[in-house]
Amino acid sequence: MAILGLDAHCPIAHCLDVVGDRWTLLIVREALRGATRFSEFRDALGIPRDVLTARLVTLVEGDALARQSYQQPGERARDEYVVTEAGRELLVILSALGEWGARHAGGTTNLRFADADTGEIVAARLTTADGRVLDPQQVAVVTR
Amino acid sequence: MAILGLDAHCPIAHCLDVVGDRWTLLIVREALRGATRFSEFRDALGIPRDVLTARLVTLVEGDALARQSYQQPGERARDEYVVTEAGRELLVILSALGEWGARHAGGTTNLRFADADTGEIVAARLTTADGRVLDPQQVAVVTR
Repeated sequence: MAILGLDAHCPIAHCLDVVGDRWTLLIVREALRGATRFSEFRDALGIPRDVLTARLVTLVEGDALARQSYQQPGERARDEYVVTEAGRELLVILSALGEWGARHAGGTTNLRFADADTGEIVAARLTTADGRVLDPQQVAVVTR
Repeated sequence: MAILGLDAHCPIAHCLDVVGDRWTLLIVREALRGATRFSEFRDALGIPRDVLTARLVTLVEGDALARQSYQQPGERARDEYVVTEAGRELLVILSALGEWGARHAGGTTNLRFADADTGEIVAARLTTADGRVLDPQQVAVVTR
């Protein structure tokens, strides 16, 4: 899927090729919560089977999920989907989406992103290389 | 647009109701770069007119853009679209998308997000309340 505009090579557009619809990011959310099986994603999201099949292919091709085979005794082999290192980096996007949604689009959840060691809640913030946190109102879009 | 799944009220899902397709976020990207007029968005993105019309409505309803009227001498009044404070907060999402895209989905751009005062480049990072930056691999999804 190519974007026709002047900024066809912008990484934002490329990233949206992988995660650019609501279902895709919600599948990633469920994968990060521990879902691995087709039926788990389907049951958690109420997503149509054909849409789920297509989005899982996109996520595997985009290297956000890895497809593995598993087999339980007496059953046929099935695929499961495991979050890759790149997939886990989508946490920054999901966190930013959740914070914007809570502030401006409504919704509540008991889902939180936390330091796995200390349990401290984390949030996506714009920071400089030396760790200074900036208010988005203080950030400009520049070309260089 | 309602999500059928168990987490129907998750702010991630609500946010995706506003910005959950590639065009919507690319329109926000252009708005943050200074585009305000229908023709500017259309020319920058190569987006079909009917799609652009629909997405601008969604962004105005979602309070990310504000519609204003402007009129040049001798011309009819036209709408222009100005980024709201809430819209500017989408910078965190766009920054996170751009960084993931550059690392994992290819693409290059001369577009950067920077401190408006100092010009320092910023990036979206997961941080604790006291400003400690965490690697996404170190972050867990928890329910509480």
